[in-house]
Amino acid sequence: MDLSHRKTSKTVRFTDKSGYALAGQQIHIKQTGHEFLFGCGAFEFIPHVMSGGEEEKQLVDSWLRIFNYATLPFYWGNYEKTEGQPDKDALMKTAMFLKDKGVKVKGHPLCWHTACADWLMKYDNETIMKKQLDRIEREVTGFKGVIDMWDVINEVVIMPIFDKYDNAITRICKDKGRVGLIKTVFDKAHECNPDAVLLLNDFNTSINYEILIDGCLNAGVPISAIGIQSHQHQGYWGREKLEEVLERFSQFDLPIHFTENTLISGEIMPSHIVDLNDWVVESWPTTPEGEERQAKEIEEMYRILFSHPLVQAITTWDYRDGAWLGAPSGYIRKDNTLKPSYEMLHKLIKEEWWTDTTVTTDENGFASIDIFKGEYELNVGSMKIQTRIGDDTETVVLQ
Amino acid sequence: MDLSHRKTSKTVRFTDKSGYALAGQQIHIKQTGHEFLFGCGAFEFIPHVMSGGEEEKQLVDSWLRIFNYATLPFYWGNYEKTEGQPDKDALMKTAMFLKDKGVKVKGHPLCWHTACADWLMKYDNETIMKKQLDRIEREVTGFKGVIDMWDVINEVVIMPIFDKYDNAITRICKDKGRVGLIKTVFDKAHECNPDAVLLLNDFNTSINYEILIDGCLNAGVPISAIGIQSHQHQGYWGREKLEEVLERFSQFDLPIHFTENTLISGEIMPSHIVDLNDWVVESWPTTPEGEERQAKEIEEMYRILFSHPLVQAITTWDYRDGAWLGAPSGYIRKDNTLKPSYEMLHKLIKEEWWTDTTVTTDENGFASIDIFKGEYELNVGSMKIQTRIGDDTETVVLQ
Repeated sequence: MDLSHRKTSKTVRFTDKSGYALAGQQIHIKQTGHEFLFGCGAFEFIPHVMSGGEEEKQLVDSWLRIFNYATLPFYWGNYEKTEGQPDKDALMKTAMFLKDKGVKVKGHPLCWHTACADWLMKYDNETIMKKQLDRIEREVTGFKGVIDMWDVINEVVIMPIFDKYDNAITRICKDKGRVGLIKTVFDKAHECNPDAVLLLNDFNTSINYEILIDGCLNAGVPISAIGIQSHQHQGYWGREKLEEVLERFSQFDLPIHFTENTLISGEIMPSHIVDLNDWVVESWPTTPEGEERQAKEIEEMYRILFSHPLVQAITTWDYRDGAWLGAPSGYIRKDNTLKPSYEMLHKLIKEEWWTDTTVTTDENGFASIDIFKGEYELNVGSMKIQTRIGDDTETVVLQ
Repeated sequence: MDLSHRKTSKTVRFTDKSGYALAGQQIHIKQTGHEFLFGCGAFEFIPHVMSGGEEEKQLVDSWLRIFNYATLPFYWGNYEKTEGQPDKDALMKTAMFLKDKGVKVKGHPLCWHTACADWLMKYDNETIMKKQLDRIEREVTGFKGVIDMWDVINEVVIMPIFDKYDNAITRICKDKGRVGLIKTVFDKAHECNPDAVLLLNDFNTSINYEILIDGCLNAGVPISAIGIQSHQHQGYWGREKLEEVLERFSQFDLPIHFTENTLISGEIMPSHIVDLNDWVVESWPTTPEGEERQAKEIEEMYRILFSHPLVQAITTWDYRDGAWLGAPSGYIRKDNTLKPSYEMLHKLIKEEWWTDTTVTTDENGFASIDIFKGEYELNVGSMKIQTRIGDDTETVVLQ
């Protein structure tokens, strides 16, 4: 497995703050963070931040030992239950809590036909469109600097033909067409925060989504990264499908984010279910064999994705069992105990793909490094520095 | 069945060439041509024009009694077997022959991965792209005024993933992406003949094609009309599918052309065949029952399409049985005798949807007309005129 794209492998000069070479010194290089985004849903952080007790603290603590990237929920129907009364306070406090811990936050999503605000439906399409754009402006501008990454629009392949229930977003998507709506909402988000990372996100990984992306890019839609959902309640895709999906979506030469990954540690959902939401069960227990399987699948999948140069993020959807669909989909059980998948991912992220090494500089302060890109703490004697190290690093100044 | 969109229903003034009202006169209004494009493949006109005998003349004569719109073949591999030696002479003579008969001609296609020129494959992709654009310029400019309607690019949904054999066009489509290639070839065709009707054409009528068109339109591709193939060797789509396809492709509010229609009068091809070209049979006879069925299906299909306001053209692919795939797909049998489908279509086009009427003008020369849009010969006494009558017709001057 070639991981050279994840590493900085070069000769770097080490100096003191006056610019004098640190010659013949042993420099301790200790990683503190990954450039790669290892993400997870962080919905449970909201009750923790707002009114947390010991139970939530357990969850938050183990979450933070692995992940550096969080998805927070901005479902319109929930975020603004009553028109004009958005729940900004809880989201802002939670996002800032995460940011303080060094976690990058993504808002999910700004436009979606599901979990949408019912009160929108009383308006005509032109008004709905205007309110959608106002909402984008309010969130993207209002959270700028705290949240600079957004799933701008979700599941557009199905959006105009979604017929399970009437909703305001399917209406405007029918009106404007898929690419027209995507372009309108992306343009607004980009205008409000030109530096934001803006994602198109879909569970449809067929040729439909390829053609949709192709059309969007030719129409000038400012897509920063392609979001791919991979909820595998019906069984692990396997290496072949995963590599095939990666190959097809690499054609655009854009960063790829696996935005919503699920691998379960219990019984597999039957394959005849088309909309996962249709699978309603009384209980869906995690099992010892299921947990072993989940850990193996997590390992293979993360290895494949981490080794692909265009993949920049993998987000597991549920952190704790029993969240979406009640599935045993987490890294921790309902009682907050760690599952084998947690141990496996921790081993990958914090041991195997993690750098803690010492290099010896030559008489001019140079030393070769071969380390994972990310945040570092370096020290020699009483001098130290906390810094990001990447391909552009030429000199490291310790003080 | 509402056909009001096919008709001119209004009060028109009739005058002599001096502008005097033809008051209280009986005007004979006799249709000579349809505005709607009733088309058919006219590949067999080439041998007729170039070296025809009695056998070809029979075919041509019956063809011309029904159709006003012809598709001529511009398959690159055939049209330019040897690089630099296009077969312009035969195509130009045939197109002019058809034009002289009042038949509108469409060239098919300018860019396609199938029936492509093998000699292109020796070039790199940049050169292939240049030669593709040069070929478009040569044909669109060279035939301007004779052929002003083109299937610019054919079957793009499958184009970059077509893997039956290597070919130059799949290579450049992989390189540029679907929408990128479509935009490049359409822009060139439009630049060479801004008044030309330019079609995107596909057999894929799934959501893939919808999304592709959506992307193209948002990317500013100058598509004049959406081309839909409907080769039904595996059985008639039926009203439900036909209406569903029409509804989905009406979302773009662009003219729709049924570009390649096939309904057969023999045994139906098994449904497990995916690429129709894979069905190779020694003989595929037309049968009496099959001919009755074909005529009924032709009738229902043409009625549905003619009644849809966005449909502007229907082209049957094979005029004579035994053409593509050897199928009994024609309006005439191999011996040039007319099939029931011919009689049925003739009845629709030249009787039911055809105007031959007399109106009486009032004291100011006005009379109400309710006639199919198209070309007309009008006469009263010794005065007459040949003219087009449509929604913009206010006054008809006879001389």
